[in-house]
Amino acid sequence: MSKGEETRLRILERAAPLLNRHGFSTAPVSEIMRATGLQKGGLYNHFASKEELALATFDHVMAQVNRRVQEVHASKRSPVEQLLAHIDLICGGHTILEGGCPILNSIVESDDANPALRERVRAVLDKWRRYLSHVVADGIVRGEIRADVNPDEVATLLIGMLEGAHLLSNFYRDDVHRQRMAQHLSAYVNGALRARE
Amino acid sequence: MSKGEETRLRILERAAPLLNRHGFSTAPVSEIMRATGLQKGGLYNHFASKEELALATFDHVMAQVNRRVQEVHASKRSPVEQLLAHIDLICGGHTILEGGCPILNSIVESDDANPALRERVRAVLDKWRRYLSHVVADGIVRGEIRADVNPDEVATLLIGMLEGAHLLSNFYRDDVHRQRMAQHLSAYVNGALRARE
Repeated sequence: MSKGEETRLRILERAAPLLNRHGFSTAPVSEIMRATGLQKGGLYNHFASKEELALATFDHVMAQVNRRVQEVHASKRSPVEQLLAHIDLICGGHTILEGGCPILNSIVESDDANPALRERVRAVLDKWRRYLSHVVADGIVRGEIRADVNPDEVATLLIGMLEGAHLLSNFYRDDVHRQRMAQHLSAYVNGALRARE
Repeated sequence: MSKGEETRLRILERAAPLLNRHGFSTAPVSEIMRATGLQKGGLYNHFASKEELALATFDHVMAQVNRRVQEVHASKRSPVEQLLAHIDLICGGHTILEGGCPILNSIVESDDANPALRERVRAVLDKWRRYLSHVVADGIVRGEIRADVNPDEVATLLIGMLEGAHLLSNFYRDDVHRQRMAQHLSAYVNGALRARE
């Protein structure tokens, strides 16, 4: 890694929790300068604009989350276990990144006047839906999940429930809503999805 | 109703869809002037500040939603039917107010730097949770809902799932996520909550 690449990475790492908490496109440059310890000129050596920095930070954050999702996926053999471990990862109180769920934060933020971020978020959400559909479809093929389950529908339900729980827990600053939803989701996977032997 | 009260009400009615869509505390005064057809002075005759107008509009919107919730509640006799009708009202594609679910919009908005709105939203969410808990508890007393169900937990799950579905359907501008969640929730109420005869 060149010195320039190192600095760029350090900026992304320090900007990530700030932008996730404050809004990827709305965090003031003065705060980004404070978090990274760089002057405006220093930042703009590495990013053409504040918008580019925001998008690069979003990508950096999502790459981190993705790595965790893939690790958890690879640690389990069975699709049902993969779903359960995924629910635990997203809703079990683990902190992947300070500032709450970056997908929730960016969905909310990008629904406004930020088409570039919205496109990024949409790609991430689409990928998440495809991932969950794929695991469910895999479970059906292996006979672990009931054949009459619709993988796309399950993806909607899981993501909607996980993000709804984050919404409530963030608002109340109380983990209990996440915990209740994680329990409900595990029971749903074990009860409604799992094929009877 | 005096002429002043009439004008006040007309302002609230016209500001409601705008502020719900744009943000209760972030909609620009120029837009509120356009929507209400009043000059700044005219607005400030009826509200001490933009913040007061925003809070009064939020109260007005929530009073509208509340009336619909109470009507739907009163139209059903059994607690299980009341829950099913409530799910249909919130997630069945009915438009109570232009601009999407005002609770979702304001949760998201008020999590920032707006303590007065946050307090209002918290009171609304608390009331919603109490209402759902109460219906579930009523169902338990009447033997319609299983005695081992925790009413508070059900309130978390229902609200989390309803709002998570709104989040996805708003983002994708596709009603399918709301529909899938409404179906899942009805099955949950009829399956996991309803007492076996």
